[in-house]
Amino acid sequence: MFSPLIEDLIRALRCLPGVGPKSAQRMAMYLLEKDRDAAGLLAHSLQQAVEKVGRCGRCRTLTEQVVCALCNNTRRDHSLLCVVETPADVLAIEQAGNYHGLYFVLHGHLSPIDGVGPADLGLDLLGERLGERENGGIVELIIATNPTVEGEATAQFIAERARTKGVAVSRIAHGVPIGGELEYIDGGTLAHAFNSRTVL
Amino acid sequence: MFSPLIEDLIRALRCLPGVGPKSAQRMAMYLLEKDRDAAGLLAHSLQQAVEKVGRCGRCRTLTEQVVCALCNNTRRDHSLLCVVETPADVLAIEQAGNYHGLYFVLHGHLSPIDGVGPADLGLDLLGERLGERENGGIVELIIATNPTVEGEATAQFIAERARTKGVAVSRIAHGVPIGGELEYIDGGTLAHAFNSRTVL
Repeated sequence: MFSPLIEDLIRALRCLPGVGPKSAQRMAMYLLEKDRDAAGLLAHSLQQAVEKVGRCGRCRTLTEQVVCALCNNTRRDHSLLCVVETPADVLAIEQAGNYHGLYFVLHGHLSPIDGVGPADLGLDLLGERLGERENGGIVELIIATNPTVEGEATAQFIAERARTKGVAVSRIAHGVPIGGELEYIDGGTLAHAFNSRTVL
Repeated sequence: MFSPLIEDLIRALRCLPGVGPKSAQRMAMYLLEKDRDAAGLLAHSLQQAVEKVGRCGRCRTLTEQVVCALCNNTRRDHSLLCVVETPADVLAIEQAGNYHGLYFVLHGHLSPIDGVGPADLGLDLLGERLGERENGGIVELIIATNPTVEGEATAQFIAERARTKGVAVSRIAHGVPIGGELEYIDGGTLAHAFNSRTVL
């Protein structure tokens, strides 16, 4: 119904998560009718990001720098390393604001069925980091992978490797969220909360 | 928290209608982590569309061609012309599938307070179209602007001009939608439906 270039744009917008055919059409019409400058800027930003953003050489988070700002920050505690699955997890932890160590981003979890092994998660690089002894090296490895079957398996795998390097390993706590009401918490979480109860 | 290029991308994605800070962040992470090819394609499509898509010389709808495919289609009824506010309205009518004439897109409605006058809506071009006499010219002008205050005012303005050119003018019907239940229809629509009742 639309001309070829507009159809192409609508199809391309559908690659965005949560955008279906109607939203894509609405976005295309909005950009072409009301805000061509923003559309041009978006095209430029996308291209720049796709071309230049890679992974930090130390923590593997997304960045266009060789080593990211977090890893370069000398005011952070370089003896703590937190392992997370995605760069968005880093943001979530940073927004909580009480962790001041460094991060290591796996970009996924172990999943033999999808062909994702230790090498894909950068566990060799993590092993090197744990082996470094300059300035005291890493003292504690905090594993914050998701509490899913794959996330737990990944946590166990990493914990075993870290122990052989003589590094203390911990896992973030799982249980009833603060502010949550027991009535609305799922059974799996409640069962875990009982099993992992702490002495008062 | 993210590197500058990623922050730029998140900010640029927020120009899309219905996309807030969280969605923009999710989209940026998705594109950079999972689908860089799609991101590159989207950048290319946006740039092409912004550079090349203009307005059809006859009906003013969005197209990269000089005259759009609808206006060039000789199998359509060139004696009927339907006036709509936006290119998306053309799509909606085409999807309904029972109108086979041509269109004229205003790209808005008369709105003195926003400085939108007849020239901005291409009413000079519409006047020329109505004055053309080749192949019988336009026999009926169907006005399908939105049933808002501005849309109605625009409809009245165009109708008066068209009558001076000796072209029959009609307005699409407004009332209770087919499949709608009276109980849930707003008062304005019901009042209009009563005032515009037809003889059975």
